Amino acid sequence: MTDCQADGEGANSPMELYEKLNAQGEKVRSLKTAKAEKAEIDAAVQLLLKLKVDYKQMTGNDYKAGCPPSENVVMSDNGPAADGADDEDTVDPWNVATSNAKGVDYDKLIVRFGSSKIDQELVDRIEKFSGQRPHRFLRRGIFFSHRDMHQVLDAYEKSKSFYLYTGRGPSSEAMHVGHLIPFIFTKWLQDVFDIPLVIQLTDDEKYLWKDLTLEECRRFAVENAKDIIACGFDVNKTFIFSDLDYMGASPEFYRNVVKIQKHVTFNQVKGIFGFTDSDCIGKISFPAIQAAPSFSNSFPQIFGGKKDIQCLIPCAIDQDPYFRMTRDVAPRIGYPKPALLHSTFFPALQGAQTKMSASDANSSIFLTDTPKQIKNKVNKHAFSGGKDTVEEHRKYGGNADVDVSFMYLTFFLEDDEQLEKIKQDYTSGALLTGELKKILIETLQPMIAQHQERRKQVTDEMVQQFMTPRPLNFNF
Amino acid sequence: MTDCQADGEGANSPMELYEKLNAQGEKVRSLKTAKAEKAEIDAAVQLLLKLKVDYKQMTGNDYKAGCPPSENVVMSDNGPAADGADDEDTVDPWNVATSNAKGVDYDKLIVRFGSSKIDQELVDRIEKFSGQRPHRFLRRGIFFSHRDMHQVLDAYEKSKSFYLYTGRGPSSEAMHVGHLIPFIFTKWLQDVFDIPLVIQLTDDEKYLWKDLTLEECRRFAVENAKDIIACGFDVNKTFIFSDLDYMGASPEFYRNVVKIQKHVTFNQVKGIFGFTDSDCIGKISFPAIQAAPSFSNSFPQIFGGKKDIQCLIPCAIDQDPYFRMTRDVAPRIGYPKPALLHSTFFPALQGAQTKMSASDANSSIFLTDTPKQIKNKVNKHAFSGGKDTVEEHRKYGGNADVDVSFMYLTFFLEDDEQLEKIKQDYTSGALLTGELKKILIETLQPMIAQHQERRKQVTDEMVQQFMTPRPLNFNF
Repeated sequence: MTDCQADGEGANSPMELYEKLNAQGEKVRSLKTAKAEKAEIDAAVQLLLKLKVDYKQMTGNDYKAGCPPSENVVMSDNGPAADGADDEDTVDPWNVATSNAKGVDYDKLIVRFGSSKIDQELVDRIEKFSGQRPHRFLRRGIFFSHRDMHQVLDAYEKSKSFYLYTGRGPSSEAMHVGHLIPFIFTKWLQDVFDIPLVIQLTDDEKYLWKDLTLEECRRFAVENAKDIIACGFDVNKTFIFSDLDYMGASPEFYRNVVKIQKHVTFNQVKGIFGFTDSDCIGKISFPAIQAAPSFSNSFPQIFGGKKDIQCLIPCAIDQDPYFRMTRDVAPRIGYPKPALLHSTFFPALQGAQTKMSASDANSSIFLTDTPKQIKNKVNKHAFSGGKDTVEEHRKYGGNADVDVSFMYLTFFLEDDEQLEKIKQDYTSGALLTGELKKILIETLQPMIAQHQERRKQVTDEMVQQFMTPRPLNFNF
Repeated sequence: MTDCQADGEGANSPMELYEKLNAQGEKVRSLKTAKAEKAEIDAAVQLLLKLKVDYKQMTGNDYKAGCPPSENVVMSDNGPAADGADDEDTVDPWNVATSNAKGVDYDKLIVRFGSSKIDQELVDRIEKFSGQRPHRFLRRGIFFSHRDMHQVLDAYEKSKSFYLYTGRGPSSEAMHVGHLIPFIFTKWLQDVFDIPLVIQLTDDEKYLWKDLTLEECRRFAVENAKDIIACGFDVNKTFIFSDLDYMGASPEFYRNVVKIQKHVTFNQVKGIFGFTDSDCIGKISFPAIQAAPSFSNSFPQIFGGKKDIQCLIPCAIDQDPYFRMTRDVAPRIGYPKPALLHSTFFPALQGAQTKMSASDANSSIFLTDTPKQIKNKVNKHAFSGGKDTVEEHRKYGGNADVDVSFMYLTFFLEDDEQLEKIKQDYTSGALLTGELKKILIETLQPMIAQHQERRKQVTDEMVQQFMTPRPLNFNF
């Protein structure tokens, strides 16, 4: 629950909520009459809409001004169950949805998924073994959950190395800043542990799920590879592959796919991914293809056919279902279970209720955005936790927990002290929404410009090099 | 329904059928006494056997002359349902079963599968375009059904070439003579039409369906390839591939697999193959892998990336479900439908009720059998259509239609006249069962010995050559 936005949820009765709605409607009208700042009006409208949703959930009826709720509210069948059983965020590889403005409840997700929290002890161990200050994503709980990371470190302590595996589904040419999160963190892990990395581009998955041709998916894979390479990966330590290419270039990879496919039933993928009888057989068998890179002998050119090199997968937590399945299968086919590090979702500009969409240009900052576009998007679309008027803001302060600009800074501003100060100032009201947005804009503009500069340096030959199956600079 | 076989189904009651049977028995006897034309006698005997089967189906009891059916016939629980719903042979890629000693009712199968009969007109056209006498498998109705073969010939007439695709599931090292049928016929087709041939060894399928390791399946594929090569295929015109190898060696092949997998739902494979929710996702998606070689751009090394070269698939009819699916998908992904030539099943030594099993050493003649083993197996296990005593046999004659030795000769004895004389003599009683078996033994022994001799010449290098993706001696 958030402090200032939970008004609807804080309401104890339909009538209380009805009155809040009346007041908020009044507020929106007066802001508009006063020709207030666009961002301020937007924020008020958003809250109004939020309250309407809460009202519908609580009463089963749409809010109508002038029609107070009846005393005996009948819950609609579609509403949340009284015991809270339905009060869960939706998190799977294709859907992320929550009604909470602060985003998904990650502590609950850890319990539901059966993973473990990345606590201070683990962060300290990572620091100890890597000899480096923990990445800001670790310091700030952006990578918040794990599976078997202690085992990975135990083995590393005994000089048993591991490798990294992450990936991306290339559904369009355009990547947004949120797509960089796993790559930024994976690069850091690779740098501090000095280990091989394989990056899977699931162009076959995108072909199966989207209305795209094979050629389009393959092209998006190459375009996305350029953005990934621009994160600064070392070609001597990193293998990037498109499924459409590598499946047809590695009998060992296909053998692992078939092995996995033999040990997973339709019942299982139905349970894990929600597939139905109307789904195509390509979707149904795809999870095995995302699972296969978790096993080192899928890459004999790198690991010399060894099948027991530990794999560590940094990814957003929506990908966990694939790897729960993988970890279930692994011992049955004689392979070690991959370990995982899970990140939270990168919020859309409009708020943390959903993951961003690459198909909505205004839902995020794209890696191709100009400085002007960045400025406009942040100013226009970044959901604000600020108060409606400067006076109120100065008096009551803003809510950084739901403020998208502040969230973005959590991801991208390196300096902990500066970030903490921004939070304090915003919460106290010393920092206004416009000023907070300005800090974000000035953080993103050079970051994106530098990315674009590095991407320009990425030639087709470099992509070709990264994507050629070959030995890396490691001996296994 | 055929014209002369439907009599039994026209009968309204067991008694009516019993009377028909009496009359037909009378007719056979009088034809034999009158030394009528062989074909005439055969037709009458066939009808008699058909009526007997109908009688058994209707009453649950065997027809016995002089024993009319009781008024209240009690159907056995395991018998066919009264509405005839169960009155069908089971024919799918994993099961072939029939209650008829003559084997599966192929005419009915043609109607059920919606294929077309290979009639004299088609055989004549094949003769005309190939310029060769039709193969004995065509002359004798062993390849009995087709899909679109006329179209293939129409195009061939206009100088549009085609290619052949057949295959084998390598479930063990040992192949039996029945496994050679599609290869013997395919070789003939290749020789007379001078066209490329691709042979798929579905080692992945065998891994998914059987309790075998990947390594075993891959090894069986190589061993089976040796037997296939020993049929005399030309390495310049033939590409043999194991799925476990080729899937990982050809991005084009995998792309077609994914294309097919996108256009087939679980509902569809459930309907076609009877898969259930408990089946592994490998089985569920496998049909796409057997479908993919039907499209010429799965082999860019042979067809230069052309996607419209017509494919012709000679196979046993139990494989037809795969290709019904393939033909359904083809136009939706912009490819021509493959044409098919279907063969009957090669009977087990024990009788034509089931297909042979590679796992039962006594169910057939294996390509590794010694002359002595061949002799013993035929003498001991080949189901006989002869009478119980020499005296009876001389008097009433044997039944070639259910005699497995005679069936085998139909497959392997090249001389039509000799075969016809054997049938006449056996039917008349002039030829005893032991003598018939001797002819078969003397046909099989040199055939198998020669095969073994040719197989010995097949080196690992030759296998390697056949199994290397490469251009063939054709320009497309």
